[in-house]
Amino acid sequence: MLRKTFCAALLAATTFASFSAAPASATPTQGSGVAWDIVEGLTTEIGPRLAGSEAEARARDWAQARLRALGFSDVSVEEFKTLAWQRGEEHARLTAPYRQPLAITALGFSVPTPAQGLKGELVYFPTLAALEAAPEGSLKGKIAFVDHAMRPTQDGSGYGPYGDVRRKGPTIASQKGAAGIVIRSAGTDSHRNPHTGATVFAKDVKPIPAGAVSNPDADLIARIASRGKPMSIDLKLMGKPFPDAPSGNVVAELPGRDPSLPIILLACHLDSWDLGTGAIDDASGCGIITAAALAAQKDGQTLRTIRVLWSGNEEMGITGGGGDHYVKVHGSEPHAVAMESDFGADKVWQLKTTFAQANAELVDKVKAALWPLGIVPHDGPTEGGADVAPIIAHQKLAVIDLGQDGMHYFDLHHTPDDTLDKVDPIALQQNVDAWTAVLKVIANTPEPIASVSAAEGGE
Amino acid sequence: MLRKTFCAALLAATTFASFSAAPASATPTQGSGVAWDIVEGLTTEIGPRLAGSEAEARARDWAQARLRALGFSDVSVEEFKTLAWQRGEEHARLTAPYRQPLAITALGFSVPTPAQGLKGELVYFPTLAALEAAPEGSLKGKIAFVDHAMRPTQDGSGYGPYGDVRRKGPTIASQKGAAGIVIRSAGTDSHRNPHTGATVFAKDVKPIPAGAVSNPDADLIARIASRGKPMSIDLKLMGKPFPDAPSGNVVAELPGRDPSLPIILLACHLDSWDLGTGAIDDASGCGIITAAALAAQKDGQTLRTIRVLWSGNEEMGITGGGGDHYVKVHGSEPHAVAMESDFGADKVWQLKTTFAQANAELVDKVKAALWPLGIVPHDGPTEGGADVAPIIAHQKLAVIDLGQDGMHYFDLHHTPDDTLDKVDPIALQQNVDAWTAVLKVIANTPEPIASVSAAEGGE
Repeated sequence: MLRKTFCAALLAATTFASFSAAPASATPTQGSGVAWDIVEGLTTEIGPRLAGSEAEARARDWAQARLRALGFSDVSVEEFKTLAWQRGEEHARLTAPYRQPLAITALGFSVPTPAQGLKGELVYFPTLAALEAAPEGSLKGKIAFVDHAMRPTQDGSGYGPYGDVRRKGPTIASQKGAAGIVIRSAGTDSHRNPHTGATVFAKDVKPIPAGAVSNPDADLIARIASRGKPMSIDLKLMGKPFPDAPSGNVVAELPGRDPSLPIILLACHLDSWDLGTGAIDDASGCGIITAAALAAQKDGQTLRTIRVLWSGNEEMGITGGGGDHYVKVHGSEPHAVAMESDFGADKVWQLKTTFAQANAELVDKVKAALWPLGIVPHDGPTEGGADVAPIIAHQKLAVIDLGQDGMHYFDLHHTPDDTLDKVDPIALQQNVDAWTAVLKVIANTPEPIASVSAAEGGE
Repeated sequence: MLRKTFCAALLAATTFASFSAAPASATPTQGSGVAWDIVEGLTTEIGPRLAGSEAEARARDWAQARLRALGFSDVSVEEFKTLAWQRGEEHARLTAPYRQPLAITALGFSVPTPAQGLKGELVYFPTLAALEAAPEGSLKGKIAFVDHAMRPTQDGSGYGPYGDVRRKGPTIASQKGAAGIVIRSAGTDSHRNPHTGATVFAKDVKPIPAGAVSNPDADLIARIASRGKPMSIDLKLMGKPFPDAPSGNVVAELPGRDPSLPIILLACHLDSWDLGTGAIDDASGCGIITAAALAAQKDGQTLRTIRVLWSGNEEMGITGGGGDHYVKVHGSEPHAVAMESDFGADKVWQLKTTFAQANAELVDKVKAALWPLGIVPHDGPTEGGADVAPIIAHQKLAVIDLGQDGMHYFDLHHTPDDTLDKVDPIALQQNVDAWTAVLKVIANTPEPIASVSAAEGGE
């Protein structure tokens, strides 16, 4: 529609002065407090901060300054080198049977296409299993398209099996001889913003160019495929990996009354994908853990020291990220519990723990602290997250997982749409309140805390 | 989040075979019927079809074939030349006080920046009125940013005053000496997909590069502006106008029993913006009018002939589009009523007419036909739309406006997100039913139909 209301516009122009004085409220959500200010600040003053980039280094400076200003002590950057990846020019279009431009983005660790593009037949697979079932060599010189439409789940568990199209698809396609692969984004939205994210090429496999199209583009490809005519694509993805990039963790503490007790570790990650500004992934996590640490000490020092870890290179840290580096530096220091916030800013709805049976009474206190916030205890395994998994594995630590509502997380995850306006300040504060409630229990008990696995292992 | 559920993924992989056989349903909405098939076909087999482009020509061929297959007679293409515009490379980034990439798109009829980009100070204006109030020459060498946040309205009336930022902003900025202008998209969504659309440079004004950023990007600029530090931008928009491009209308008829009676004209437009596939703007309109014309004749020929016009170049037709060309070809033929569908595919909720008092009884019949569909009669002016406005003005025709729900239309309008998945087949069919109900009344009456303006004019 172009001119439907044009006459209305002309009429309205005569009364223009009367509404022009009204404020043009730009920001749909307005929050306040420590957590909001961190999310607002990181997204506004730094923006995208891809691991290994100059922007990630600026983010470390920003984080140090902010944590010092908030009263944290022992604020330090612990630098490390990492395998990184740089995005390049990227576009794609179907050339047959119909000419259609596609909204595409390269996956992290994709290798580049030729500069003039990669042209070839596009072969449709409805699922990752269908790709796996393709005969060896059958994709020689062709480009695989793997559908594998993801649906939202409240606990985010769909990301396991559906995210595998991104993690494993490129390796499998290469093993079948494909010259490239395009996947449906591992995401649950319906916008023309494809989801990036790292893939991992197995060691014996030749890396190939790998990209993801948005869900509407994948729908289009599926509709065209269903017409039964051969499809061709022209693909240009110039992103490429590079070694020895600088990254680093930012670590800071709020000292407890008894420095001899094992500490409580709270983690988030500072790096983000480059397409958005990393508001839900994971500025929100850094805001939540930092605000909760401060709130837990509002009425006086906690018994145990609380340490925050704003990790570097979580997103591409498969071959060694901030969580691994943390173990190298701090692996011999005594920890009681490690917790991570890295699943957006929607409300916490479930609690999972891996505390040993000996700590059952303590777990009951944690549950009691969370009942008023509407948080339901759940059984089942939990492993923390990428930033704490290495220290948890190293020390067989107990975990508390405050599970956030994941129904919309994968609408935004790893897309250009991961921006501040997607953060609901009320839900963000509910997270802070939940974390604070937990900390007030576990950071104030002298009781030794052990995990199920440590107890079972008899250590 | 990268690896939070990675262990869950590994666990799930062991049971992968059990769910891999399930169909990977790709298309979120599935419709059927004439209207759906037109929308599905145009978006899948043609896609973007910018006025004056080779794709618009392919769309005309497609439209002719489809209308003939559906049983229309006198199917013809009426070609004309038009001023058109071609998109080029486009990107922008803030360079001070913070480095941030911006999601930007050029406005139609923008002129190109220098190939190396346009760099300069970015000056924030909260409203179009604030830009208008800037002193002459005060923007010399600078780039204007105009906020002017649009909110949704059910009747789409917000597009008048808020759309003016796009229609008039570039001219005003140029008059103040600006080297370029960036606006907040005239759109109501919160995705990183900026809204394009035509601007119009006044005759005495030097055209300047003009682009729109997405709402989240505009929020970011507003937040940075509120910090009070000078902003700089690096802007590259290579789109440019070109004259004498080929366009054309596709016209077809379902003959009535009495060819001597003035005809009923139903219009939509075939061209679309280039960023999406033109599903709601305006393949849906073409689907709706065409399906309704056929449905009105399902039980036998209507008394009056029904003509459909799938107009060329509506989107950039300010200086002469399909509606104007229709008058040149058909301006002397007798018309009874002209109607247009060009406001998406959401449900019709209101009826407006400009019938003369002499036709009051006929209007009551139209109202009665629409009550069961939940459509409310409203007073107030209505002017049809761009494709029928010229013939309406030329012949002082009566209008029937079946107003669709506009609460979400400007989430998608002129963005990459205008794709098939946004069309709800149930709402689309409600449109067809409403149009059919109206046609069954007005195409079957021999009663002379006149408009208020024609009656008042004493013609």
